[in-house]
Amino acid sequence: MRLDTDPYLERYASRVRGMRASEIRALFSVVSRPEVVSFAGGMPYTAALDFSAVEDVVTRVIRESGAVAFQYGGGQGRPELREQLVEVMRHEGVPAHVDDLVVTVGGQQGLELVAKCFIDPGDVVLAEGPTYVGALGALSSHQADVRHVPMDADGMRVDLLEEAIGRVHAEGRRVELVYTIPNHQNPAGVSLSVERRHRLAELAEEHDLLVLEDNPYGLLDFEGRTYPSIRSLVPDRVIYVGTVSKTFAPGARTGWVAAPTAVRDKLVLLREAADLCPPNLTQMIVETWFATQPWQDQVKRFVEVYRERAETMLAALAEEMPDGVTWTVPAGGFYVWVTVPRGVDTSDLLAKAINARVAYVPGRGFYGDGSGGDQLRLCYSFPDPARIREGVTRLGELLTRELELVRAVYGDRPPDAADDRRSGSGVASQGG
Amino acid sequence: MRLDTDPYLERYASRVRGMRASEIRALFSVVSRPEVVSFAGGMPYTAALDFSAVEDVVTRVIRESGAVAFQYGGGQGRPELREQLVEVMRHEGVPAHVDDLVVTVGGQQGLELVAKCFIDPGDVVLAEGPTYVGALGALSSHQADVRHVPMDADGMRVDLLEEAIGRVHAEGRRVELVYTIPNHQNPAGVSLSVERRHRLAELAEEHDLLVLEDNPYGLLDFEGRTYPSIRSLVPDRVIYVGTVSKTFAPGARTGWVAAPTAVRDKLVLLREAADLCPPNLTQMIVETWFATQPWQDQVKRFVEVYRERAETMLAALAEEMPDGVTWTVPAGGFYVWVTVPRGVDTSDLLAKAINARVAYVPGRGFYGDGSGGDQLRLCYSFPDPARIREGVTRLGELLTRELELVRAVYGDRPPDAADDRRSGSGVASQGG
Repeated sequence: MRLDTDPYLERYASRVRGMRASEIRALFSVVSRPEVVSFAGGMPYTAALDFSAVEDVVTRVIRESGAVAFQYGGGQGRPELREQLVEVMRHEGVPAHVDDLVVTVGGQQGLELVAKCFIDPGDVVLAEGPTYVGALGALSSHQADVRHVPMDADGMRVDLLEEAIGRVHAEGRRVELVYTIPNHQNPAGVSLSVERRHRLAELAEEHDLLVLEDNPYGLLDFEGRTYPSIRSLVPDRVIYVGTVSKTFAPGARTGWVAAPTAVRDKLVLLREAADLCPPNLTQMIVETWFATQPWQDQVKRFVEVYRERAETMLAALAEEMPDGVTWTVPAGGFYVWVTVPRGVDTSDLLAKAINARVAYVPGRGFYGDGSGGDQLRLCYSFPDPARIREGVTRLGELLTRELELVRAVYGDRPPDAADDRRSGSGVASQGG
Repeated sequence: MRLDTDPYLERYASRVRGMRASEIRALFSVVSRPEVVSFAGGMPYTAALDFSAVEDVVTRVIRESGAVAFQYGGGQGRPELREQLVEVMRHEGVPAHVDDLVVTVGGQQGLELVAKCFIDPGDVVLAEGPTYVGALGALSSHQADVRHVPMDADGMRVDLLEEAIGRVHAEGRRVELVYTIPNHQNPAGVSLSVERRHRLAELAEEHDLLVLEDNPYGLLDFEGRTYPSIRSLVPDRVIYVGTVSKTFAPGARTGWVAAPTAVRDKLVLLREAADLCPPNLTQMIVETWFATQPWQDQVKRFVEVYRERAETMLAALAEEMPDGVTWTVPAGGFYVWVTVPRGVDTSDLLAKAINARVAYVPGRGFYGDGSGGDQLRLCYSFPDPARIREGVTRLGELLTRELELVRAVYGDRPPDAADDRRSGSGVASQGG
C-alpha cells in the first residue's frame, strides 16, 4: 500500500506558477517511490496510533450501535461527538459550548463552508504569507481576493496587518475575513506571539473584523505549552476551525467549526446542501476514542515522534545547508520553512531534487500572488529520523551544487527567482 | 439511541412555505418519538444489514491496513473503491471506466460539486416536479433558477420538457442542466419509461444539453429489473451520480460521480477545495464489502424488506383513504406520493397528523416554486409492516375527518390549497 499519498500535493501542483501544473503533478507522482525521501506531504505519522485500541473502539461501535453507525445523521453532527470536541478545546483553553459546534469533514470542509458563507467574488481576505494551501484553495474557489500579510519568527506581523486593513479601507472596500493559523503555522512553522494575539483581538474590535482561526496544530507543541486562542479573546468575532487529523487520525476526516449562533445556523444549512451529514460511523469512532481512550497519552506519543524528527531535521540542516540558506525553527507542528539565496528558483529546482531522490513543496504553492519562488517547505512528520538525515543531506548537496553553478554563471549578482518579485512577505529565518 | 433521525427533515422544513420553517422544524423534532409512526424520513432500513459481516470487514481493514485507513487519501478517491463501483454500475448496465469516477461524501456531495461547477446565479435548471429536496438545496445554494417539468406514472413528461426548453430558449437563455432521477424517483415513486429515456437522450443531442442523472434507487426494483441509464444512451452528455447509501449503508457516506474527463478534472479540484479527500476508512470498508461479501444478496434482502412494506402500505391506503385521495404505485424504491382533494393543505395538516401520531413530508418541500400544497410524501422503507398499517389508518382517519370538515364549511367548492396554485406538475396518481 502506498502510504505517502497526500491530497495536498495535487493542490500545490495547481498553485505553483512558472512550471505547468501538469509538470509539477508529474513530479509529485513519483514522490511516493521508496527511493525518494519525501518532505512534501503534510501527513501525520498514523503508524504511531495504537491500532489495537482503535480496533477495540471500532468493534464496540459496530456491536453496540451498528444500525445507527451506518444510518444517516443530523447535519450539525452528533451531540455526543460535539461534547467530546468541546472537551478537547477546553484542554487547550478554548471556550465553547456544544451548541456552537458544527462537525465537518476535516478542517478543510470548515474552511470551504466559511468561504461559501462569506465570500462573494472579489471580496478581500487578509491572510498570513505564506499560508495553508487548502485555505487558498477554498477561498479562491469562491474567487476571494487574498492578500498576504508578512510574518516573522513571532507569526503574522500584526502591525503590517493594520497597514493592510488601512489600504483596503482606502480603496473604499472592507475586509471580509482575516485568516490565521496562530499555532505552529503551516507552512511557516512559527506561532503568533501572545502579545500579537491580544493586538489582533483589539484590531478585530476596532475595525469590526471577522477572524477565521484555524488550529490544527495547537496541541502539538513540543513542550506541551498552549497559547491563548483568538476565540478566547474575542469570541463573537471569531470563527474557529478544529480537526482531529493531528490529535487522532486524518483518515477519520473529522473536523469542526465553532461559530457565533447566527453563523453556525448558516453553516449547518450550507453543509446539508454540501453533503447532507457527516458519517455517523467515523463520528462515533472519534467520540468513543476521545471518551474512552487515553487520548492525551496518544497525543504525547505523536508529539514525541514529531519532536525527535524536528530535532533531527534542524541538526541536519545546520550541518548540510550551504551558506545563505535560512530556515525557521519550529516549536511544534510539522514544518520547517526554508529560504534559499538569490538565483535559485525552488519550482525549477524540484525536478533536480526528485532526481536526487528528495522532495519538498515549492514556496509558490503557499501564496496567492506568485511570490515564494525563493522558498520551500519541508515536512518532517512522516519520514523516520534516518531518512530525514539522508534527505537533508541530498538536498544540501543539491543546493550546494546549484549555488556554485549560479555563482559560476552570474558571479555575485544572480537574477531574482522567476516570480519577478522577492518574497517580501517571507518569514524571517534562522541562518544555516 | 434515536434511529429516526433524518437529515432531510431539516431541509424540508426550510423549504415548506406557508408555515414558518421554525414551526415545521418543531413538528419534525417530535417525529422520532416512539408513539409517532413516521413516514417522513427517507431512511434505508439499516437494521437489515448483516452486521457480523460488516464487523468482519471493518476488523480486516483495520488489522491489514490501519495506517492507511486512518491517513489522508487522494481527492479522486481510492482506485480500489472506484473499481468496485464500476462493477456495481456494470451490474446495472451503466458503462463506466475507473478513471471516470470521483468518489464523494454520499450522492449529495456529487450534486453539490456539479452545482458549484456549472451554476452561476440565475442559471436555468430543468427538473422533475416534484424532485429531490437535496438537489433543490444544492442547486438553490448556488442560486439556480429551477423550473419543474410535470410527471406522470411514466416519469418526467419528456414532451413537456421539450416545451420547457423551448420557453427557455425563447427568453434568449440556455438550459444549464436537466436534472432527473429516472429510477423510482424521490419523491414521486415512479420511473421514466424506456421510450422516454430514448427521447430524453435525443433531446440532449438536439439541444446540446447536459443531463444530471441521479440514481440512488436503480437496484431497488421489486422485480429485480433494470432500465437503460441515460448515461448508457448519451455518455458524453451525462453526469451520473451514484451512492452506496441504499445498496450498502448511508452511514458510509460514500457516493460517486461519473463524468466526461474534462468535467471530472474540475470536480476533483472542487472536491479538494471542499473537503480535501473522502475518508480512507469508509472507502476501504465499502470497497472491501463489495469485493469480499455477497453484496447482491444483501441488496436482495433489502429489496424484500422494501417490497413487503410497499405492498403493506398500498393495501392499507386502498382500505383506509377516503374518496378523492390518490397515490402513485411504486415498483421499487422508498416512496408513495399522495395527492389530496381540494380544500386540504398538507403543510397545515402536518400538526394535526403529528397529534394523531403519524408523520409525512408536505409536498411543498419538493418544489422550488411553492406548489405541492395538495400533495405529500410517504416513505415506507423504515417502519415495520404493523406500524405501516397503523400509521396509514391514522392518516386515513385524519383525512376523512378533514374532508368532512371541508365539505361542511365549503360544500362542493372548497378553496384551493394555500399555495395559490394547484400542483399542475403533480404526478398522475392511482385512485383510492
